[in-house]
Parts: sequence; C-alpha cells; structure tokens
Amino acid sequence: MGPHPAVAAIRLAVRRVLNDILDDHGRAPGRPAHEPPPSPLVLVACSGGADSMALASALAFEAPRLGVRAGGVTVDHGLQAGSDLRAAEVASRLRELGLEPVESVAVTVGRDGGPEAAARDARYAALDAAAGRHGAAAVLLGHTRDDQAETVLLGLARGSGIRSLSGMAAVSGADGRYRRPFLRLDRQTARKACMVQSLPVWDDPHNADPAYTRSRLRHEGLPALEKALGKGVVEALARTAQLSRDDADALDAWAGRAEAGVRDADGRLECAALHDLPPAVRRRVLRRAAIEAGAPAGSLFARHIEEVDRLITGWRGQGAINLPGRVVARRQGGRLVIRQG
Amino acid sequence: MGPHPAVAAIRLAVRRVLNDILDDHGRAPGRPAHEPPPSPLVLVACSGGADSMALASALAFEAPRLGVRAGGVTVDHGLQAGSDLRAAEVASRLRELGLEPVESVAVTVGRDGGPEAAARDARYAALDAAAGRHGAAAVLLGHTRDDQAETVLLGLARGSGIRSLSGMAAVSGADGRYRRPFLRLDRQTARKACMVQSLPVWDDPHNADPAYTRSRLRHEGLPALEKALGKGVVEALARTAQLSRDDADALDAWAGRAEAGVRDADGRLECAALHDLPPAVRRRVLRRAAIEAGAPAGSLFARHIEEVDRLITGWRGQGAINLPGRVVARRQGGRLVIRQG
Repeated sequence: MGPHPAVAAIRLAVRRVLNDILDDHGRAPGRPAHEPPPSPLVLVACSGGADSMALASALAFEAPRLGVRAGGVTVDHGLQAGSDLRAAEVASRLRELGLEPVESVAVTVGRDGGPEAAARDARYAALDAAAGRHGAAAVLLGHTRDDQAETVLLGLARGSGIRSLSGMAAVSGADGRYRRPFLRLDRQTARKACMVQSLPVWDDPHNADPAYTRSRLRHEGLPALEKALGKGVVEALARTAQLSRDDADALDAWAGRAEAGVRDADGRLECAALHDLPPAVRRRVLRRAAIEAGAPAGSLFARHIEEVDRLITGWRGQGAINLPGRVVARRQGGRLVIRQG
Repeated sequence: MGPHPAVAAIRLAVRRVLNDILDDHGRAPGRPAHEPPPSPLVLVACSGGADSMALASALAFEAPRLGVRAGGVTVDHGLQAGSDLRAAEVASRLRELGLEPVESVAVTVGRDGGPEAAARDARYAALDAAAGRHGAAAVLLGHTRDDQAETVLLGLARGSGIRSLSGMAAVSGADGRYRRPFLRLDRQTARKACMVQSLPVWDDPHNADPAYTRSRLRHEGLPALEKALGKGVVEALARTAQLSRDDADALDAWAGRAEAGVRDADGRLECAALHDLPPAVRRRVLRRAAIEAGAPAGSLFARHIEEVDRLITGWRGQGAINLPGRVVARRQGGRLVIRQG
C-alpha cells in the first residue's frame, strides 16, 4: 500500500524540485565533467505551520533517496512572548524528521514598509545568511497555490499592471536559491499530509489577525469571492500569475530592445520614435528611463508613468512632471529629458 | 451658479465622447473636404437604471450644443411580467428629455451561454439593428468604472490570461460604434446626477438577484474585497483593465509578426523556431494556429494551449492533443501540425 494521496502529492512536488536542483547543481560551471558533484545541501525554511512542516517532511523523505543532504532553518521573529521557545520546538521537530543541520535564527524586525513587509525582509535576510553559512544549494519555501492566489489579489489592489499580478515565482532569489515546490498544491493538501503523518503543526496567530491585509484577504476576501465566482477562483488566480509573469517578461524584453531604437546619437529619448511604439512598450521604456534616472522603482506608480506618457501622446506644452526620487521629466525640442533635478 | 458637481461630471464625460465622434465623423472617408458633414445621430442605450438615465440626460444636454442629433433606444428583454410597460415608460422619459428618435425594441432572449450572456447577445443585436435603421454614428452605453471592476473580476475567475482582464473597451463594436463615456466615472456619481436632476430611475431586480454572478459579485464579492484590501480596489481594477488591454494588444501584434517567422516554406510550424520564442509569444502563436484550424476561440482555454505547448517545450514522444472543434495538434518530424481531424 502506497502513502496517503496527500503525502504522495507533497513528496512528488518536492522530488521534482530536488531533481531540478540536482540538474542545475551538476551543471555548475568550472567543475570537470569526470568528477562527480558533491552531495548538495537543501534547506527547508520552516515556521512550524502546516505548509512548511509538510514541506520539511517531504524533504526529509525524498532527499536521502536522491543523494541530497537536507537541513532546516526556522526564524524567530521575536514578535510574540515565547517565540524563542516556539522556534526551539520547531527546530527540534525538524531534527526529529532527520534533518541536519537545523538552525533556529533570531531576527529583529524593523518597521519599514509595514509589519508584514518588515517581517518578510528580516526573514529573507536571515535565510540568505543561513544558506551562505551552510553552503546550501537551495532553500525550499512552503508557499502554496492559496498563498499565490492571495498574492495576485494583493497585486491587483495596487492596480499597477501585470507585473504585480504575477505573484511569486517558482524559482527566485540570487542564483535561483529559493524554490517553491508547493506553488501548484493547495493548502488543504499540505494540511492533510501533516494530519495523516501525525505531524503536530502550529497555527501562527498572525494568520488569523484581521490587522494584517493578507489575513483579511484569506478569511474574508477570498471566501466571498469564491462564493460569488465559484470554487475555481484560487486556481484561476494562480494560473493568472503564471500567464502574467510570462507576458510581463516578454514585454520587458521588448522594451529593453526598443529603448536603443528611440535614443538619438547623444542618448536622449526622441519623442517621435517613442510615439510610434505600442503604448504597452512605450510605458515600459519610460519606466526604465525614470528608474535609470534615480526614481525608486517601488514608489513609481502607473499614474506617474501615465503623466510622463502624456508628454508624448498628449503634448500641449505642459510643464515638467515631478517623479519620486526628485526625478523630473520634461519635453524639450522633440526630446524627452528625464533626470534628477 | 454651475450645475451640481455630479451633473458637471457626467456632462463632461459625454461632451468628450461627442467631440471624439464628431472628429471621427468629419474624417469619414469619401466625403469631399469642402462639404460640411451632416449632423450625426448619436443614440443612448437606456435601461431606465441610474447609469443609463444619467447618460441620457447628459446626452440630451450636450448634443444640441455640439450640433449632434440625440436619440434613444430601450430594449424590452421580455423576462418579467410587465416589461413591455416598463420599456414604454422608459421610452417616454427619454422623449421628455428631448431625445428624438426614441424607440422601444422587444427582443426574445435565448439560452445560449447562460441567462446573462443570452440577454446580452439579444440586447446588442437589437442595438445594432436600431443603429442601422436610424443611421446612427454611435451608440452610448452607460457602463461605469464599477461595472468595469466587476468585469475584470469575472475575467480573473476564468484564469485565461491578461486579455480576459482587460474588461470593456471605451470604444468597441463594428466601426467603433459603441462608446462608454462613463468608464472612468463611478456608479455613485451617476446615481447622484439622477437624484439632483429629479430623474426617476428604475432598479432592475436582476441587479440584486443572487442567481446572477455579476449581482453576487457586486453585492458580496467586491464589498468583501474592498473591506480586505481598502477602498481603492475598484479604481485599481479599472486601471488593471486599461493596462492589461494595452499589454494584450502589444503581445498579439508581436505574435502576429512572429508567426510568419516560424513557418517553413510549406507554411508548417517549425518546432525549433517556436521553441526560441518567448513563452508568452509562443502560446499566442499556438492559439492563433488552433483557431485558424477551426477551434472555436471561446472554447479554447489556457490549459489546452499549455498542453500543445508541451509538444514544443516538453517533448517526450507524446501523442496527439485533442482540442475543441475536433482540432488535433501533433508533432511530426520537427513540425507542429494543427488541423481538423
């Protein structure tokens, strides 16, 4: 008798990603072809919640079968009393699964960008450092299809275009360090896999705290949307993420090529040439130029680019446009000049 | 003292569109330059609801000032007892506003595609016919920014990519016949404009009927999403529509150009050339080829195209892929053959 379907599903998802990592690892540059690559180390980032505990259990099962070393990291955000004990407990559970090395890392969460963003920044900095210390080939993250759907809706609320609809990538970070094996798996499967393997899981109270946007979305927004639109919403959102990511990549590549063609001999942007580009490409060229001039990408919204675009498509002698980062865009003699001023 | 801000807003929106129509009308091909164009007729499609009554009132106010003739059409869908009387009443209100000609058209709603789609098909067929009969230059539709936000969410639920996120166009139909002046205006403004002008409006009971997806979205889905994500959601969705539309247009154009480059001398698709295209462009080329081969566009989903795509990117000798409309895609000797079988 094989494992429970939920357990089979999480193991298959992890096995696929481990095979990808082995492929990439074997192809590492500079290694002589006749020398077998050393056994790579893969870490799982584990909060103790159902998603990442399921991930840890699947990694512990699959890694030895594929000649991969498997370890774990849990991050103590220090945001609740007793969080250090909680982290120690998660670390001991990871060791019980057979992972080695296992580390609990305490971080200090700042305030930049709100509580969720600050916690995330601190967490990834700690994971990066841990991966570096242990020479890990990859760090697995437990994000599920449900997390992806929430991320797409959060991006939708920004109204800043398809890049923000593209959610989380299956592979991200420096050298593709971060991998998300569960991105096509639903949260229910991870939960079920923990249950049938008798893995105790911890429900982070933040996940149910209505002070957090993502939590409100999870417990109220998405269920109401499912009630109105039907049960397929989560899958539809996840597929939208993938399609949007590919579309955004293709358009970014186009804008990159187009940029060279719209600059004059002195590198200034020619308004007539910009005018001839499709609006989607032109707006991306303008955005690139604004960022290159020093505008911080995170503060540059669609409405800023629209205003700069009107210097090209709706020219009636308007004045300079102020952009974030003290960057100014103005039209001068058929040229668009964007610079810090 | 000028008009109430809501009335000023609806009038400005209509004035802009009438000016666009006059521009297009003056440029009609085949008319000698020295001959002034005849006064064009613009019809408003009016259900008697707040959005289209506000639109009718603004059209009645602005049209004579711009030398435009203004008429109205109301469609009796025959779905409720007394709907004929209702339509006659709406028509008489349109006449009271000074519109001429005004017509009430009865239609028979079929069943194809569900109740909402069938009613919409019947309505547009009736509007097309009325526009033809009266030689109208344009038909104005009362869709607001809120309708646009709902349409984006309905598209999102299909999960079929950014084209389905692009909502309704400001200009659509044959020769750009349909215009939506209120696409950037919120429903509240239209409602307010009716109130301050003492225009009686009719609340279509379908709009509150939970049997209709759009109604559930309007009364439950969107409010819950706004509660989770903040009040800017409707605006963000409407902006997403515009950005997605431009992006989808640009990628469609790219795919159109790319298609010629991936066909061999006999017009067959070359797998190696397809493989080199960005995924977003390749999928669009495959979709075009499937539709050209006879697959009905409306039944061709993202998952179909993904499967065909794997004949290119994940080739391991798999068999033919069945697509809607008895279209079959198979790989043969480095060529992709898509045809009705």
